[in-house]
Amino acid sequence: MAEQQPAEQAQTVTPWEVHGATVGGQQLGIDYDRLIAQFGTRPIDSALLERFAALTGRPPHRFLRRGVFFSHRDLASILDRYEQGKPFYLYTGRGPSSDSMHLGHMVPFVFCKWLQDVFDVPLVIQLTGIHALPPELTLEQCHSFAYENAKDIIACGFDVRKTFIFSDLDFVGGPFYHNVVRFARAITANQVKATFGFDNSSNVGKYHFVAVQAAPSFSNSFPHIFGEKKDIPCLIPCAIDQVYVALTCRLTIKDPYFRLTRDVAVKLKYPKPALIHAKFFPSLQGSQTKMSASVDTSAIFMNDTPKQIEKKINKYAFSGGRTTLEEQKEFGGNTEVDVAYQYLSFFMDDDEKLEEIGQGYRNGRIMTGELKKMCIEVLKEFVGDFQAKKKQLTKELVFEYMKPRALEWGKS
Amino acid sequence: MAEQQPAEQAQTVTPWEVHGATVGGQQLGIDYDRLIAQFGTRPIDSALLERFAALTGRPPHRFLRRGVFFSHRDLASILDRYEQGKPFYLYTGRGPSSDSMHLGHMVPFVFCKWLQDVFDVPLVIQLTGIHALPPELTLEQCHSFAYENAKDIIACGFDVRKTFIFSDLDFVGGPFYHNVVRFARAITANQVKATFGFDNSSNVGKYHFVAVQAAPSFSNSFPHIFGEKKDIPCLIPCAIDQVYVALTCRLTIKDPYFRLTRDVAVKLKYPKPALIHAKFFPSLQGSQTKMSASVDTSAIFMNDTPKQIEKKINKYAFSGGRTTLEEQKEFGGNTEVDVAYQYLSFFMDDDEKLEEIGQGYRNGRIMTGELKKMCIEVLKEFVGDFQAKKKQLTKELVFEYMKPRALEWGKS
Repeated sequence: MAEQQPAEQAQTVTPWEVHGATVGGQQLGIDYDRLIAQFGTRPIDSALLERFAALTGRPPHRFLRRGVFFSHRDLASILDRYEQGKPFYLYTGRGPSSDSMHLGHMVPFVFCKWLQDVFDVPLVIQLTGIHALPPELTLEQCHSFAYENAKDIIACGFDVRKTFIFSDLDFVGGPFYHNVVRFARAITANQVKATFGFDNSSNVGKYHFVAVQAAPSFSNSFPHIFGEKKDIPCLIPCAIDQVYVALTCRLTIKDPYFRLTRDVAVKLKYPKPALIHAKFFPSLQGSQTKMSASVDTSAIFMNDTPKQIEKKINKYAFSGGRTTLEEQKEFGGNTEVDVAYQYLSFFMDDDEKLEEIGQGYRNGRIMTGELKKMCIEVLKEFVGDFQAKKKQLTKELVFEYMKPRALEWGKS
Repeated sequence: MAEQQPAEQAQTVTPWEVHGATVGGQQLGIDYDRLIAQFGTRPIDSALLERFAALTGRPPHRFLRRGVFFSHRDLASILDRYEQGKPFYLYTGRGPSSDSMHLGHMVPFVFCKWLQDVFDVPLVIQLTGIHALPPELTLEQCHSFAYENAKDIIACGFDVRKTFIFSDLDFVGGPFYHNVVRFARAITANQVKATFGFDNSSNVGKYHFVAVQAAPSFSNSFPHIFGEKKDIPCLIPCAIDQVYVALTCRLTIKDPYFRLTRDVAVKLKYPKPALIHAKFFPSLQGSQTKMSASVDTSAIFMNDTPKQIEKKINKYAFSGGRTTLEEQKEFGGNTEVDVAYQYLSFFMDDDEKLEEIGQGYRNGRIMTGELKKMCIEVLKEFVGDFQAKKKQLTKELVFEYMKPRALEWGKS
């Protein structure tokens, strides 16, 4: 049940709370322009996208065209390096989880895969340790998740020649650990508390984790890929802040971590990582609704069957349509809040068709049931492709991605 | 210059302050019986020493006979294991330092060496990381200290077949790191603050360091020595609390760390490490005097020349003797506060001779100059032996001690 909303409330985006402003009792969507001003980032505007297209010779990904990745820090410098033929790499991560990934988790990985293809650069993916997880979960459980989580990630289609996936539980040591130590020395408890909201009852692993998360931002953490070089910057696709969070699935890669990382990089004379920020991915109940306690009914999981996808969209996806067929025909639906439409805009690549569907829905030609049917088809295909790729993975291939080794890039 | 003392003050022993009680304006020595009660440890009494001697067939070390190691936690269980032929090991450590070790640093190592000989057990020595050091010191500097510090330690005479010396900067990773993570999850910021006095401006490396210090207490951190076994307890010779601290030399191994470690061990179902506690080692200015800002004049360093030793003892060692020859003859000296006598009691092995000297000094037969001369002779020999051993060390041999490898023990 939705909670009682106050008549007027400001937009709030913190690691603990995400909601749009409430005006005259009606809650609005997140105002991302305000967020850019608030976080002090730069918008990804049409000029930047044109430069991107001109440099790479590829049309921008739908996530760029549609503003899913809407904001950045230093993306322009990364494009400068690309133009000059200088190296850079991609870094992203995932927290350990026993659950299958869900659609929201896919956004940064789908985008990373595309960036890897377009730029032809190495990608490092950290399966982060156990620090953020409840104490009941043992290290052994968390460790075994890493292998399963790696399978999910690989099924997004990453090129084994250019991708290194590692769990910090296995990889910490040597130059990587030295960067962890350098970072841990340069960040105070105060900074960590302010950024993550830890208090004195939080465990010291959490306090320290920021350093483990930061280390992959620096190329000399990976001597098997970059040798001794410590001047190669990375680009990190991440969420602007707390994203869709189910009960046990977390995307730990987000801007506040890396704002700290960028500050410390300057102190340590490392290049600052560049960031590119995604919008929040709506739950089935919609982006304005608080998360349901039941995980299963709030998201499409990547191991859902076609039947489950159909049922979830039909039963739980928040609709922007009118309550009766007649009203829908007369007044049309609201694509701004309609979850089926939102999901289509994330996962349907065809701009014209999406525009057509949006117009049809808004002017009452397309009914809620039809829109949901189209969404179900797109998601079935997307999830089905993923599952087929995952099924083909051998243990040997997964280990190959996770083996510290030289990568090949810049040759295609 | 000594600070103005209040007329009455209670004994204080915390990680930040160590002094005996002041009664009627006179400061007393540390009351170690009170400390045992306060810290909740057990005294090393004559019954325990007799059992020790009976089990090992060796007379107790002078540090035990003279109460330098005066208190313990669970030493009796270690003796039980020895009696039953069950394995255990020794663990101690040293913080990184550019300085030579001084006499105070030698106490736990001299004792460890003796315990290793008597019990015929493995010893692990952690050269702790950089966390406690000032920010100016780089990781590279700290790393290079490790090799030099290892040389100092090896020169104490440890058996290469039974001794593993490591820097956490090199060794962290795998099962060792897994124990670090387990510990970091089980200790809150509150606990660390209360134990070490960190505040919010302390760096998160310090907060986390307790876990790095704790990991060697558990046998499964060292698969190359103990295989998968996690039920082998260790015995840790350490200081009861803050010991003699020069400006840049610190003994980071002390009871408060391991009180936390023992609490967490129970949670993690590991055996609790046993502890054996040393008394404070007096500076040249005496145990009741605050440390001088000048390091060099407050301690005998292990790289001091015979001339330096002579000069330091003659010029700086606090004397318990009377101000004139006549007074000394009439009233005798005070061995309780006399630093030359204290040092003799640490480093002269012959009980009878020490007793003779003590009596002679107290009843005025021995003058301050003579006492100092005897002290100088003993220290010259001790330091000279050390320097000779250190000179013989090859790089290859130092690396052999620091190589993760199987150890041999229980065979002599």
